[in-house]
Amino acid sequence: MKPKVNLKEKFSLFSAHWTPKIVGELNGQYVKLAKIKGEMVWHSHANEDEMFLIIKGSMTLYFRDGKVDLNEGEMFVVPKGVEHLPVAEQECHVMLFEPKSTAHTGEVESDLTVKELDWI
Amino acid sequence: MKPKVNLKEKFSLFSAHWTPKIVGELNGQYVKLAKIKGEMVWHSHANEDEMFLIIKGSMTLYFRDGKVDLNEGEMFVVPKGVEHLPVAEQECHVMLFEPKSTAHTGEVESDLTVKELDWI
Repeated sequence: MKPKVNLKEKFSLFSAHWTPKIVGELNGQYVKLAKIKGEMVWHSHANEDEMFLIIKGSMTLYFRDGKVDLNEGEMFVVPKGVEHLPVAEQECHVMLFEPKSTAHTGEVESDLTVKELDWI
Repeated sequence: MKPKVNLKEKFSLFSAHWTPKIVGELNGQYVKLAKIKGEMVWHSHANEDEMFLIIKGSMTLYFRDGKVDLNEGEMFVVPKGVEHLPVAEQECHVMLFEPKSTAHTGEVESDLTVKELDWI
């Protein structure tokens, strides 16, 4: 079995924004931690639902027809196929749950796209 | 899309121990919240890995060959097939992440077994 994961400790190990790190895996899904700040890119994941859980700070998920503001202790599931744009005015710490197959920025490639994620 | 979930608010909606409530679903997995206190029963899930994330308080997962203490902000994945016994001396609030198919107490039936979980 893998050792337990302390979220604060893991977040202290990296500082780059928009570069999720893998901290766990189960049932074909990865648990990832990300520090986000600023604006990502509009994208969707054709086959994967994606869950955001806010560990620290706040962020907004924009959709083509609305938005949802997420604060610490709140979670949201973006269903597969739904275009979304994550934005954080201040640095925000997020836990992500998504299938291993999920591409970072979906079908979209941008300067932010990370192709190989690291475990920490 | 389902509305966002505020964990504190959801935890305020129930008080029973060992009775997980479903608060989200993605990719065939459920996100559940549970309040636990005391000792559960030894059990395992043949085909499902199970993740525990401690939202408040602390708990211990006992295994046949050891244990792991989990505090607020810590997570642990129990691999499929591994017998475990969750114990919490004081009430502990836990987020669980596991496939929809996961039976509450695995193959074991006890007074604690809940067969149909509710969404909250």
